[in-house]
Formats: sequence, structure tokens, C-alpha cells
Amino acid sequence: MAVLINENYLKLKSNYLFAEIAKRVANFQNEHPKAKLIRMGIGDVTRPLAPAIIEGFHDGVAHMGKVNTFKGYGPDQGYSFLIQAIIRQDYTTRGVTLEEDEIFISDGAKSDTANIQEIFGLENIVAVTDPVYPVYVDSNVMAGRTDSMGEDGRYSGLVYLPCTQENGFVPELPKVPVDLIYLCLPNNPTGTALTKEQLKQWVDYAKENNSLILFDSAYEAFIREDNIPHSIYEIDGAKEVAIEFRSFSKTAGFTGTRCAYTVVPKELKAFDTNGTVHSVNSLWARRQATKFNGVSYPVQMAAASVFSPEGQRQIRETIDYYMVNAATIRDNLIKFGLDVFGGVNAPYIWIKTPNNMGSWEFFDLLLHQANVVGTPGAGFGPSGEGYLRLTAFNTLENTKEAMERIAQLSL
Amino acid sequence: MAVLINENYLKLKSNYLFAEIAKRVANFQNEHPKAKLIRMGIGDVTRPLAPAIIEGFHDGVAHMGKVNTFKGYGPDQGYSFLIQAIIRQDYTTRGVTLEEDEIFISDGAKSDTANIQEIFGLENIVAVTDPVYPVYVDSNVMAGRTDSMGEDGRYSGLVYLPCTQENGFVPELPKVPVDLIYLCLPNNPTGTALTKEQLKQWVDYAKENNSLILFDSAYEAFIREDNIPHSIYEIDGAKEVAIEFRSFSKTAGFTGTRCAYTVVPKELKAFDTNGTVHSVNSLWARRQATKFNGVSYPVQMAAASVFSPEGQRQIRETIDYYMVNAATIRDNLIKFGLDVFGGVNAPYIWIKTPNNMGSWEFFDLLLHQANVVGTPGAGFGPSGEGYLRLTAFNTLENTKEAMERIAQLSL
Repeated sequence: MAVLINENYLKLKSNYLFAEIAKRVANFQNEHPKAKLIRMGIGDVTRPLAPAIIEGFHDGVAHMGKVNTFKGYGPDQGYSFLIQAIIRQDYTTRGVTLEEDEIFISDGAKSDTANIQEIFGLENIVAVTDPVYPVYVDSNVMAGRTDSMGEDGRYSGLVYLPCTQENGFVPELPKVPVDLIYLCLPNNPTGTALTKEQLKQWVDYAKENNSLILFDSAYEAFIREDNIPHSIYEIDGAKEVAIEFRSFSKTAGFTGTRCAYTVVPKELKAFDTNGTVHSVNSLWARRQATKFNGVSYPVQMAAASVFSPEGQRQIRETIDYYMVNAATIRDNLIKFGLDVFGGVNAPYIWIKTPNNMGSWEFFDLLLHQANVVGTPGAGFGPSGEGYLRLTAFNTLENTKEAMERIAQLSL
Repeated sequence: MAVLINENYLKLKSNYLFAEIAKRVANFQNEHPKAKLIRMGIGDVTRPLAPAIIEGFHDGVAHMGKVNTFKGYGPDQGYSFLIQAIIRQDYTTRGVTLEEDEIFISDGAKSDTANIQEIFGLENIVAVTDPVYPVYVDSNVMAGRTDSMGEDGRYSGLVYLPCTQENGFVPELPKVPVDLIYLCLPNNPTGTALTKEQLKQWVDYAKENNSLILFDSAYEAFIREDNIPHSIYEIDGAKEVAIEFRSFSKTAGFTGTRCAYTVVPKELKAFDTNGTVHSVNSLWARRQATKFNGVSYPVQMAAASVFSPEGQRQIRETIDYYMVNAATIRDNLIKFGLDVFGGVNAPYIWIKTPNNMGSWEFFDLLLHQANVVGTPGAGFGPSGEGYLRLTAFNTLENTKEAMERIAQLSL
């Protein structure tokens, strides 16, 4: 007898993207301790929490210190005060009707997008875009829905939907039947957004093919153009075919505060192998009730403050700040003669490497010659090879300085 | 084509214990709106966070509001300042040496004890005590390590270790080979603690049989007697065979604040089917890095404040308060002629139902005739039938009143 590991873990590529980046950056810093690095790689924010949010957060903490306002275990799905604010301001304003028990508050969209696959059978065929946020892929590898990664950088068992310069980074509808489809829009890493008409094709596809869309809209607050849906539920009938993931991380600077939510409409159906229909909402409620104990009450108070009039005004100022950075990056790199995508409705700028350089080669060039840290596109999937991602989340000063440094390079 | 569910979910008993309790309580309250209920069922605390913890929590929130002290994504495993405090005060003081990367900060022991099974193969044989904290069982059912529940209330595929009045609620060593063993000590729900010699038998068993112990010590702070180990690592060699789960929930009133930690020593080994050895620590690190994004920074600041001299003094006062409740319940019920267990080294009192009443029958009797809410032992497994659990987490006033009401019953 011996304890056996989950062997699916052995299929994972050993170097997780951000760990490899961290290693290369650390090596560079050891060799050049005086270099002033500008980090535009990992999608972490830099602006502090807005005053209205801090006030709500402090109030929540104060409640925990007094016997009459102390909160023990909260509702698994989250407090009603937060769920109601979300429905009112993120959905009702866009004509989307949701009930309270269709919203699940969590500690992060990373957790939810990683855990959601647990409620579905291993037999389902999963489609992901390429490039893609690695968590969608890795969580399915760990669960056993794939074989090992092939020489082409793809896990056999997954259906990859390439997003390239040729198709404007808009994935084509799957050519083989698929059951679960991960879509992140506005997209990480390419910064691409889909119009209402384009997204409607996906909803229609899912209806016709009995597929379910796992829609990550973590970056919806960065949308600037009209006719780009903020929620997939703005498309008629989407409640029958889509789960939506949202996060306060980028919207309100919660990367270190941790709060997100997932919408699982009651219209969503899935089946057992006998053909009996089951409510996806009930399955997720059961999963969360068994394996999760809710989000910290003061954090939920902080999140609810995002929806106050002051909170809304203040987070919009911060998002505007980051979008000035995005425009700064975009305009400068175009001026330098680079092919640049995204950065209009998203905080991500997706850059074609100059002279057909490899992703990691361009990463190393920027690190060593400009002391700017990006993210190699190849880390997001084989179709990301030949691209590099920069984020708009640094300070304006650093963003401008990074552009001045890159201007000095001969690209 | 259709989206298929994870059919293992269909094996779960439809009424989760605490949901059934909530339903019966709600029905009673509808019928008797004036009754003043005293809740001694679910293990939730009632005392506010201690002043030192509130102070640290506020400091953490304040840091999030200023650009120079703002924290974005933290280390996946948790901040060093918290991990160091844990090692220093929970382990070094007991002669246990741990390295920083052997501690993983999380949002709750419920999450960790539910998720830990993911890193192990489905082929492993899992042993649980009976009665047992339902999360250990349900997370394995959902993963597919069992068949449906039989007429005897047991899931086939699991090995049950009965804890009854006959064996003093001390589980016997498994009679068939097992790989993973969940032990919760001091125990939820029976309140039983094991001596160092008794626990050593389990460590020795695990070594001899190449098993791994999943040791939940969420209630260690309630230990009052000498010779009861607070950590399984107080037993020589346990680092080779045990993962330990700890929580701030009961220790420091964090049920609504959410913070816990899990110790995965680097000595722990598991194997693939080729016989190659793997580090369990690395597997858990990979799991957490992929599916979790760390605990809220202000919450980690609050948790670190638990370890300040004031924090330690203040949480001990609160624990003392609850243990006065435990003694009050224990002493009164013994006086009433009931068979009572636990409540000495644990906040749980495990009561043999009078006159061989069923668990739910006694639950209903206490609810209807004393307006006291307990937890039916049968909800924790078939060997819990004929018992009921009360908790020491209510106020002293309510606890005393509950005893006065029960004194009026003819049991």
C-alpha cells in the first residue's frame, strides 16, 4: 500500500508562466541590482482602494469588534446587501433581471473559474481560446479532462480556438461539437472585445449545440465603446446557456482584498447520463455549501461600498487613470512602428513582436535593454507565440518612462 | 450533445444536515413567533473579535487606502509576517520545527479539508471516523471515491471507524488497509481528545501502513488537560505521515472573518503508479497556485494580531468564557441524569439521548419543549444516532437559561 497522487498533475507543464517570469526577473536583478525595473507583466493593480471603499471596509471591521454587530458565519452565497447592490447596479441598469439566489459571492474569479468544472462530468468536451488565461486550462488538466501536452503546446482532449492577427483575435465558432466553452471578454490577454452581434453568434451557437458558455467578464469595467456588451446576459436567451464570472479585482482594485461573484441563472440545465435534467444553479450551490464558507464580512462591506455614488465615481476615476496608461502605451508603440492590439476596451495591450522575434526573446530584450517586464504571449498558449502582453496597471509616471525607454531601442 | 453533470453529486444525501435543521427551526418559529430560541446547534461563535485583532484589522484596511502601503496580489501561500508568527507561537513553543513554505494560509479549514483530496488519486482508500464532520465525507463523494449511500447510512467505498460509548469515542485502528485517514482532534462532534500515547498509535499505524493522516486540529485552543497534544507533530515522526489543518475560526472568533492554515511538511511523500515518489508539499503548492489567490491582506493582518501578547491574552479570555459555558452545560446535564461526553478539552458536548430516543426525536423535543436548538448526532453519521451535540459558543446567559429550561423537562 502507498498513498497515490492525482497523476493528472504530472501532465501540467512544470513551469507555471508567472513563476518562470519571476525567476528570470530575479536573475536579472541579481546581476543588475541598480536597475530600476518597471513591471507591466502580471495584471496587478497599483492604485489604492478608493476612500468610499476604505470607509465601508473600516465600518465592517468595527462591526466585528462589538457584540451587537458581530458577524459569525454569513450566508454561504454572500450577504443580501451586497447581492442586491450587484443586481441593482451591474444588471438592472442593463436590462438584465436576476434573482438573489442566482448570484454567488466568492473570494475571487480565479477560484470560481477553476472550481466551476467540478460540477460537470469528465466526459464533457471543453473548448478554450488560444491564447487563454492558464487557469481555465490547468484546472481541467488537473481534473483529468486531457492527456499530456503535445509537441504543439496543446493538451490533447481540449478544443483550441485560435485568436490571431488574421482573425482579428476573434475566435471562430468550434468546428467540432463542444460542451463547455470558456470565453473571456474583454479578453485577457489580447485586449479584444466583441460587439453585441459577435457575442450573439456565440449565444446562438450554444443554444443550437446545447453547449454552456463560461463567460469571464472580469474586465467589463474597462469597456469604452458602445455596442460592446458588459454582460453576456445583454444577449437575449443567454441566461439559458451562460454562467458569468465577475471580479472586484480590476474594477475596484481588490487584487489583494479578494472579492468576486459568479452568476448562475436558474434557467441553466445540464443532464445526467439517463437524460434527466438538473439545475446547474443547484449543483453550484451544493458545491459552494460543501467546500466554501463565504467571504469575510468586512470585505463584503468594502465590496458593497463600490456601489455607493461616491464609490462609483471614485472607481471610475481610477479606471480612467489606467485607461490613460493604456492609451499611452498603445499610441507610443504604434508610433514606434509596432503592431499593437487591445488597450481600447481593456487594460491589456497585445503587441506583435518586431522582426518575428519569439515571445520569450522579446521578453528578455525588454527586460535587459529597457528594464521593462512584460508577459510573453507564448505563456498563454501556442497562438500567443510572437506576441507580448503589457498591462495598463502601473503608475502613469512609470508607464511614460517605460515608453521613453522603449523609444530608445532599435526595434 | 448535452452538457453532462458530475454524477457523483447525485450520490449525496439531498438534505445537508444544517439545512434540515434550519428548515425545522424555521417551521417552529413560524408556528411559535414569540418563542425565544437559544441556538446551541451550529458551531458558530458569538463573542466579538478581540480589541488587539480589531486594531490590526483596521491597520490592514488603512494600508489598502494609501498608495505607498497598498497591497495587490499577495504571496499565494500567505504573507511571511503571518506565517512566521504561526511557526513561532503555535509550533516552536511545542518543540516543532517548520519552514515557511510548509505553511499555507487559506480562507478556511472547511475549504482546505474539502480541497486536499484533489491532489490524491481516486484509487486511495479513505477512512473516516463515525460520527464525522460531513465535509470530509461529502468532498470525497463529489470526487467519485464512493458509491451511493447504503441503507446503513454509509457510503460504500469509505472505511468507517465507529466512535461510540463502548470505545470511549476513541476510534480503533482500521482493520483493512487504508491510505488516507481523516482525524479531527479534539473531536467535532464528540468533544473527545486523545492523549499523546493514543495519538502515537495512529502515527505508528500510518508509518507501518504507508498511510497519510489528514489531521484537523481546529479545536486545539480548547485543550485544558496536560498530555493532550495540540499538534500531531508533537509525536515523533508525524511530519512523515500527517497534514495538519488549523483555523482561526474557533480559536479567535474568525468564523465570519475567514482565515485558516494548513501545514504540509516537506517530508511527506506520495507515489505515482510507476512507484515514483512525489512531494505532497509541491502538489498542494501547485493546487493552491492554480486555483486560489491568497487571503485578503487586512484579514492576514488581523490574524497576525492574534499572536501579539495582547491578542494572546484576549483570545484566551474568550476561550475561557466559552469553556465556562462548556462546564455549565456538562455539569447541569450530568446533574439531570444524562450521559454526557466531551466539553473538557473541546467546545462540544455530546449527549446520549434519554430513553433511547432517536437523535432527531430528541432534537425536536428540545426545540419544541425548551426552545433550544442542538444538532442531531445522526447528522454526523450512523454511529451518531442516539446522540445530540450542544456547543459552548452561545453567551453565558443563554447557556444558563437553556440549562434552566432543560431542567424543567422530564427526561
